[in-house]
Amino acid sequence: MKGRKRLKSNLGWSTTDRIVVQGHDLVELIGNTSLGDFAFLELKGRLPTPEESAVFNAIAVTLVEHGLTPSAIAARLTYFGAPESLQGAVAAGILGMGSRFGGSIEEAARTLQESLASAAPDADPRDRAREIVARYQATKQPIAGLGHPIHRPADPRTARLFAIAADNGLSGRHIELMQLISVEASAAYGRDLPVNATGAIGAILGELDFPWQVGRGLAVIARAIGLVAHIQEELAEPLAGEIWSRVDEEASEHNRSG
Amino acid sequence: MKGRKRLKSNLGWSTTDRIVVQGHDLVELIGNTSLGDFAFLELKGRLPTPEESAVFNAIAVTLVEHGLTPSAIAARLTYFGAPESLQGAVAAGILGMGSRFGGSIEEAARTLQESLASAAPDADPRDRAREIVARYQATKQPIAGLGHPIHRPADPRTARLFAIAADNGLSGRHIELMQLISVEASAAYGRDLPVNATGAIGAILGELDFPWQVGRGLAVIARAIGLVAHIQEELAEPLAGEIWSRVDEEASEHNRSG
Amino acid sequence: MKGRKRLKSNLGWSTTDRIVVQGHDLVELIGNTSLGDFAFLELKGRLPTPEESAVFNAIAVTLVEHGLTPSAIAARLTYFGAPESLQGAVAAGILGMGSRFGGSIEEAARTLQESLASAAPDADPRDRAREIVARYQATKQPIAGLGHPIHRPADPRTARLFAIAADNGLSGRHIELMQLISVEASAAYGRDLPVNATGAIGAILGELDFPWQVGRGLAVIARAIGLVAHIQEELAEPLAGEIWSRVDEEASEHNRSG
Amino acid sequence: MKGRKRLKSNLGWSTTDRIVVQGHDLVELIGNTSLGDFAFLELKGRLPTPEESAVFNAIAVTLVEHGLTPSAIAARLTYFGAPESLQGAVAAGILGMGSRFGGSIEEAARTLQESLASAAPDADPRDRAREIVARYQATKQPIAGLGHPIHRPADPRTARLFAIAADNGLSGRHIELMQLISVEASAAYGRDLPVNATGAIGAILGELDFPWQVGRGLAVIARAIGLVAHIQEELAEPLAGEIWSRVDEEASEHNRSG
Repeated sequence: MKGRKRLKSNLGWSTTDRIVVQGHDLVELIGNTSLGDFAFLELKGRLPTPEESAVFNAIAVTLVEHGLTPSAIAARLTYFGAPESLQGAVAAGILGMGSRFGGSIEEAARTLQESLASAAPDADPRDRAREIVARYQATKQPIAGLGHPIHRPADPRTARLFAIAADNGLSGRHIELMQLISVEASAAYGRDLPVNATGAIGAILGELDFPWQVGRGLAVIARAIGLVAHIQEELAEPLAGEIWSRVDEEASEHNRSG
Repeated sequence: MKGRKRLKSNLGWSTTDRIVVQGHDLVELIGNTSLGDFAFLELKGRLPTPEESAVFNAIAVTLVEHGLTPSAIAARLTYFGAPESLQGAVAAGILGMGSRFGGSIEEAARTLQESLASAAPDADPRDRAREIVARYQATKQPIAGLGHPIHRPADPRTARLFAIAADNGLSGRHIELMQLISVEASAAYGRDLPVNATGAIGAILGELDFPWQVGRGLAVIARAIGLVAHIQEELAEPLAGEIWSRVDEEASEHNRSG
Repeated sequence: MKGRKRLKSNLGWSTTDRIVVQGHDLVELIGNTSLGDFAFLELKGRLPTPEESAVFNAIAVTLVEHGLTPSAIAARLTYFGAPESLQGAVAAGILGMGSRFGGSIEEAARTLQESLASAAPDADPRDRAREIVARYQATKQPIAGLGHPIHRPADPRTARLFAIAADNGLSGRHIELMQLISVEASAAYGRDLPVNATGAIGAILGELDFPWQVGRGLAVIARAIGLVAHIQEELAEPLAGEIWSRVDEEASEHNRSG
Repeated sequence: MKGRKRLKSNLGWSTTDRIVVQGHDLVELIGNTSLGDFAFLELKGRLPTPEESAVFNAIAVTLVEHGLTPSAIAARLTYFGAPESLQGAVAAGILGMGSRFGGSIEEAARTLQESLASAAPDADPRDRAREIVARYQATKQPIAGLGHPIHRPADPRTARLFAIAADNGLSGRHIELMQLISVEASAAYGRDLPVNATGAIGAILGELDFPWQVGRGLAVIARAIGLVAHIQEELAEPLAGEIWSRVDEEASEHNRSG
């Protein structure tokens, strides 16, 4: 097998009497590590400190459940057609966690990380914020992590998440920059553009020293929990047939008149 | 809208200033609830007691990571073809959590729950166990939750999981019956058939009073975490191309000679 | 590599100057074989006769498009969240082609094939039909392939499909038995239960000597075409946002009053 | 319902006695339209001419089958874990038809269409070709639609596809430009860079006046057929267990020595 690359994953492997995950004996982790901390271990390669654990679990739970979102509706409709496959319904829901949803966390995290990585140590963060806002204005794109279609005056999760980060000594340059972007954007656009939950989570990923690509993955992890709960609810009290008939009713009106 | 069913999910809903999940204000949960406990809330409708939390997190983390399993390989190969879609790669991996993998937990939990639900209060659990073993023998199917292709003499996770259940006052009739099934099956088949991790988790789901259908969902939730970690590893150090060439090499040998 | 099984697929392989599919040179097939006939080749291992081609293409096109079905809605909602991944939206739609939709073709085909396989050569097919209807009555399940929620008095596709089979000399014992099941079921239930399109397709699969498992696969193949068309329409004139708001509106009413 | 958008798809709708697809009565299409022509109708809104039909079916069948590709392996491994869900295995395979595979057709088609759309009517296509090659050289990206890792001296499908287009009067500016790009790229890089099958298909999509986005969709449609055939083969003669053990064997070597 000379010249071939080893097929080796550092995540996990097992022998007859041991299972090892990220260098830890799984049997020792069981009972000592919560699901959220285990996720941190998987993604980071080490267990979190208590402060990191508090902050990481906080951002993860924020993303679990949002009611009848497009991804939850897609999962329920899929289960309606294929009740033999819970995993297929959850997968259908996860497939909607792309650039529009999970992607906004990713984009906020990336904007902050790339800006800070290229910044001179003594650069004024206000200049960074202005530069970022100007770049978005030039492309006429909405700024990732700001504003919310429903929540007024501000997304109630943001203040909570930033407070937890501060309480745990994890409020640093990424959160500062995110907040300054909000200030500068509100001035530039002449209306209030507060940091929303995806912006807060994107900033906190930077404080936890996660690469921005983890943003979409974290959304997928959290939403998988919510989607299993939606299918469990669908099992007991199905909504899919009724959802279909709402859409089809219109289509049928068209059909009859068309 | 007379005569129409309401499209109402109890899982979550929101107004301009509030987000509510299973009757709790989300902002109050953030920072006070770990990801594992939040999953319990989503699936059960209430937060866990400290004992339930310990046991639920223990079974969940057991299912996160198993190295280069078929579902992890499928996720990596999918990412290779579609690197723009992390969610697609994770979904592909989740699609493999069906009757063979997640299904074995489900089947173990179902066997125990249906047997205990139909048992007379004073029935001898040994009779139940014998009856279950006889039923499997008649159909020549392997008994769900027993034995393991790799681990010898026994799956190291089982003893750990049962100890955690006992320590938290959650070792009851389901675990007892699962262990008796192992005893009776070992006698019937004339070889050691210890309870494996899926059997232990199936039994513990009963102790936590979860319906057996949650078994597959729990596997999906846990594995979503592992799959995101595999894609993150693939991003840094890809294995997919090498995996493909191992399979294709053989196919190519065939091709040249065929 | 002694003792190892060869990784060999008969479907396709290639060398530097040739690509071979099911034993045919791909370059010779291109331009001489239609997509439907190529699908027949893939599934059957040989090209169809002109008669088989006519009948196979007829059943395939019947399954392509049905308007805003649950799977089309799920695909559109998925695309809304992940517009970077057309393949993810189509996959989400395909995941709904399970036991309820693709499965009914499969079940009709299986019922017919298993009944005919076990029948004595001189058995009266009416007895077979009565036996099948009695078995469904005993389990209180609807008979696969009969009746339709919308089409009155009968599914207009059925007569057309059976006529095409007859015109091509492919109307045999499976179609005869399907029609007798309809007669016996209508008598047994005291109302008209005509053969619907899935029953007709299930019967025709038997005439084409396809195993019943192909039923679900054929539905997946046909529907993939329809789903790509739905995403293309969504690209030009999106409905997903409106679909979401119809569902959410109700949820929001609940929210405000709840 | 004032102010609400109608939920109206032009693709298909039905009444009690009619099913309409793209303005045609489905019952009239059945028996008169092949699967490939039906796909053209779905994607284009009208039936093809005989020449368009010949060319469209030719490019579609080219994409159906490529042996044990990553997407076929992913589908087989998924089926191994979830044999109850053929649709899940096919969906897993489709999820790999992203930017690397289906995307190369899309990119070739887009490059040609955007270049020709912005060209002056009397522009020399050689200048266009040089400009495109220069742009790729500047970004150090491989040119979409040129070269092939296996086929030498050239992809055998290309000449065949271009001949069929010419025979049917559909060899125009897109094919001409694709061929000129090959000439200019071969000169610029000092090695033979012939048009491959994805480049040929990308060019032909332009001749058929399809938008470039259809490229990925066509790959998905064609590959769905191939994936169903792979699962059917897996059903009869499974390779998944063996594929897994090849990957795992290596992992296990690591495990034992690790």
